[in-house]
Amino acid sequence: MSQPKYIHALDVPVPERKDLDAGTQKYFDICDEKLGMVPNVLASYSFDPAKLRAFSDMYGDLMLGDSGLSKLEREMIAVVVSSVNKCFYCLTAHGAAVRELSGDPILGELMVMNYRAAELSPKQKTMLDFANKLTETPAKIEEEDRKTLRDIGWSDRDIWDISATVAFFNMSNRMSVAIDMMPNEAYHSQAR
Amino acid sequence: MSQPKYIHALDVPVPERKDLDAGTQKYFDICDEKLGMVPNVLASYSFDPAKLRAFSDMYGDLMLGDSGLSKLEREMIAVVVSSVNKCFYCLTAHGAAVRELSGDPILGELMVMNYRAAELSPKQKTMLDFANKLTETPAKIEEEDRKTLRDIGWSDRDIWDISATVAFFNMSNRMSVAIDMMPNEAYHSQAR
Amino acid sequence: MSQPKYIHALDVPVPERKDLDAGTQKYFDICDEKLGMVPNVLASYSFDPAKLRAFSDMYGDLMLGDSGLSKLEREMIAVVVSSVNKCFYCLTAHGAAVRELSGDPILGELMVMNYRAAELSPKQKTMLDFANKLTETPAKIEEEDRKTLRDIGWSDRDIWDISATVAFFNMSNRMSVAIDMMPNEAYHSQAR
Amino acid sequence: MSQPKYIHALDVPVPERKDLDAGTQKYFDICDEKLGMVPNVLASYSFDPAKLRAFSDMYGDLMLGDSGLSKLEREMIAVVVSSVNKCFYCLTAHGAAVRELSGDPILGELMVMNYRAAELSPKQKTMLDFANKLTETPAKIEEEDRKTLRDIGWSDRDIWDISATVAFFNMSNRMSVAIDMMPNEAYHSQAR
Amino acid sequence: MSQPKYIHALDVPVPERKDLDAGTQKYFDICDEKLGMVPNVLASYSFDPAKLRAFSDMYGDLMLGDSGLSKLEREMIAVVVSSVNKCFYCLTAHGAAVRELSGDPILGELMVMNYRAAELSPKQKTMLDFANKLTETPAKIEEEDRKTLRDIGWSDRDIWDISATVAFFNMSNRMSVAIDMMPNEAYHSQAR
Amino acid sequence: MSQPKYIHALDVPVPERKDLDAGTQKYFDICDEKLGMVPNVLASYSFDPAKLRAFSDMYGDLMLGDSGLSKLEREMIAVVVSSVNKCFYCLTAHGAAVRELSGDPILGELMVMNYRAAELSPKQKTMLDFANKLTETPAKIEEEDRKTLRDIGWSDRDIWDISATVAFFNMSNRMSVAIDMMPNEAYHSQAR
Repeated sequence: MSQPKYIHALDVPVPERKDLDAGTQKYFDICDEKLGMVPNVLASYSFDPAKLRAFSDMYGDLMLGDSGLSKLEREMIAVVVSSVNKCFYCLTAHGAAVRELSGDPILGELMVMNYRAAELSPKQKTMLDFANKLTETPAKIEEEDRKTLRDIGWSDRDIWDISATVAFFNMSNRMSVAIDMMPNEAYHSQAR
Repeated sequence: MSQPKYIHALDVPVPERKDLDAGTQKYFDICDEKLGMVPNVLASYSFDPAKLRAFSDMYGDLMLGDSGLSKLEREMIAVVVSSVNKCFYCLTAHGAAVRELSGDPILGELMVMNYRAAELSPKQKTMLDFANKLTETPAKIEEEDRKTLRDIGWSDRDIWDISATVAFFNMSNRMSVAIDMMPNEAYHSQAR
Repeated sequence: MSQPKYIHALDVPVPERKDLDAGTQKYFDICDEKLGMVPNVLASYSFDPAKLRAFSDMYGDLMLGDSGLSKLEREMIAVVVSSVNKCFYCLTAHGAAVRELSGDPILGELMVMNYRAAELSPKQKTMLDFANKLTETPAKIEEEDRKTLRDIGWSDRDIWDISATVAFFNMSNRMSVAIDMMPNEAYHSQAR
Repeated sequence: MSQPKYIHALDVPVPERKDLDAGTQKYFDICDEKLGMVPNVLASYSFDPAKLRAFSDMYGDLMLGDSGLSKLEREMIAVVVSSVNKCFYCLTAHGAAVRELSGDPILGELMVMNYRAAELSPKQKTMLDFANKLTETPAKIEEEDRKTLRDIGWSDRDIWDISATVAFFNMSNRMSVAIDMMPNEAYHSQAR
Repeated sequence: MSQPKYIHALDVPVPERKDLDAGTQKYFDICDEKLGMVPNVLASYSFDPAKLRAFSDMYGDLMLGDSGLSKLEREMIAVVVSSVNKCFYCLTAHGAAVRELSGDPILGELMVMNYRAAELSPKQKTMLDFANKLTETPAKIEEEDRKTLRDIGWSDRDIWDISATVAFFNMSNRMSVAIDMMPNEAYHSQAR
Repeated sequence: MSQPKYIHALDVPVPERKDLDAGTQKYFDICDEKLGMVPNVLASYSFDPAKLRAFSDMYGDLMLGDSGLSKLEREMIAVVVSSVNKCFYCLTAHGAAVRELSGDPILGELMVMNYRAAELSPKQKTMLDFANKLTETPAKIEEEDRKTLRDIGWSDRDIWDISATVAFFNMSNRMSVAIDMMPNEAYHSQAR
């Protein structure tokens, strides 16, 4: 089994769990309980509680908060964006989430490999086409693109959330590849 | 004078200032005091205090917190990333910041137009080359790229901050272009 | 579970097994025995025995014949090429082959997602860099690229096989995406 | 006159004609008779009879077998694909074939240089647009692209052959550029 | 204030004004009078009067001569082309011209940063879309693109001028970046 | 024989020869005498004597004037640039010029198809690599690129001429493709 090289490539050490402040320890205990692990991205950020909190607050609001998009749809966007950027960490972690939330292992593979091969509703297909374009060529987004989303049934408030999710993973992908962050091994076999 | 079309293109209305919660009102008062305006990006997020706080916490930590990078260097990264993505909002707001912080209006123009035409220290040039590559082709970042940063004098902790800044503006650019966010007019004439 | 839409999108029907000529029937029986299935690519070609034989002869020589490259290395090339071209069929079928031949499920994921995140020998890394470049920008291959392969230890005869494998999957990927060929479902859970 | 550097750049020697097995000798005699030469691609493969036969069987079926596409149309596809990939060997050999089969030297140049400048029937133009897209961005082929071909009059069986031809030259181009294969000089002056 | 490194990077010295021939001296006197400076591009070419005259004749005819395009529209094209090519010299000089001619400083910034964020008439938007495509992917221009210009109200004679302007700045941009030509500082503060 | 569709696609009529002013008539007579034809590009510009003169003056200085580059080298640059931009007119006309000036028909084909397959001196290869980069990605030219030219033996004055030639054909290609200009048929069979 190929061993992870490390959690990430920088000499910015991941603190030992016992050395973390009480709040972070509690947060990580909840991760253990709910996910069966502390995701390496959170471990990576834990050297600086302000950075960890900023990241996890934004992530929580975006991926777990109220939205016109289902949690699965948000995870589908996460994977499609990560597929353009070829981010090993995010494809692994969020590919697992798509498998888990959909109960459909093949859907996870389709999002990782090429969402255009999936059988999706026109509404979801349009959402992912927008995610793909906003990732690949943000300079070329125009009113026409927003109109296409509206015409297929997304509200303006939904477009905010679609955009914010695409934007977030364009950040997260770049942070992960910049430091060569490795996903927890457990993701690979989840929900296959 | 070309009038801004709107603050952004979505029907997700910007609340009136008086309708905001006390915390946000106070935050915006500080903006007025320090910047002479409430940046439109903050006004845009103010319809949802959780989103506004997540964004401003991450922004504040990244751009204003302690770092091996000067504030000017972080703004230079912001503009170079935004130049790749051709984000009108961020080029305007952070171009002004480069002019302001450097006291050098032409440096701001160089970052907006093509950082390769600027006369920079090899260390800053290497930083911006990395920012450019991580923005354009994140999939192709390799250990070699981190090594190049280290060899010119950036510490691993600095590489974290460079990466996080590049990543953040790849998010922020995409959110802005997705909703066609317009910058406050005042930026354009600042520090010319 | 997302049902495959079809074997492929064209109205070029896959013949029933019993209607195939004796030679093809025997070949498919061997597939069943060795692989537990007839790969959909072979089923697709079976409407025309000449096309099926041409494809399977070339495939067999290339992927199963004698070579300075191990079978695993040839499968790694197949997946890296397919990852550039985002071919759902080949990523699925050859991703499974990498997992199977290596006994390392994560290696399969790495090839699908981004081979640059894998810990490989310099010789294999150089081979995959060449595969990636020959796939993305064939017009830009020069003597320098062959020299890089030689310098790391590949013989000229090996370079033939590397090139032929890259070339083959650039064909096979395009055939599969052109007709939206769906992989057999069984691949997805293999060797996880 | 610029002398060909070699048949190809690898130290995988082309056997002398007299050392080939009887079958290959006979095949090459037929080439001499019909084409006035043994194409260098066949000479290159002749070091290994299995590879030669696999290549020539597939080529023969595809380019010379029954099809809803004329031989000229298949050669036009060959050249358009090779123009994207800038393959000197295939542009030379198949450019000559277009000139020969059409009796129109300028048509050959148009396919080499830019098929968009040619005056073609809408049906052929659509075929070449598909060839171009499947070559440049295979990941982006969708049902819409197949529909466009059908709407202009291509049958599903024709789409198979168009796709297979495009796919084949994406293979053949990459093999040729990978080993810097040089075309027989005679092609250059043919059918001018 | 960041000092210009030089007028350009080549050891092809700019002659002293007093050493120029009488015609050039007179031309530069007129520049001083009308523009308040001799643009560095003209100073650069002055080492060879034939080159200077060829350049200034073409420029004068194109940008100042009769045309169905207003001078402002021609300057808008100049900046949009230069924005694709990221030419520091031309973005600076022609960005100033857009600000000057329009009396709208923000319009200049929009052309530099991303013309898609500007509120333009459909006719001007179409003109700039064509300028952008002809700059980025000239190989893909087709009759359809000319038709789009005609349909929105441009005459064939206008299309000549639009094309000639786009073409000219694709030349001028490349000359400037090739020799790292620096714009006169005065442009930066003009018409802000 | 495929008939040229027209001289160009715009309704900007080419004047009859007898209606041209005396100077242009004389110039065209010289073309007839020296080239055996009036190149269609000149015919196209003849509707406006000022445009014709500006174009032909610049062309003459650049391609026929004194330079450290041979006329053949300037034509090689013309074809390599036109190959990137896939300009049918310029590939045809200047491909013929390379054949003519070199007495080597294959060299002309190599420049059209892929200059990387030609056997060139390192000095000429470096010149064409620069031409290719300045055409494809002008924004990425840096001092390093000029240094590479100097190190292989080009003077700064030569770099001016190389750059000016590359720049000119990036203009000329775009004008030609924008209006779909057709080359004179005679070029195709010249110097084969």
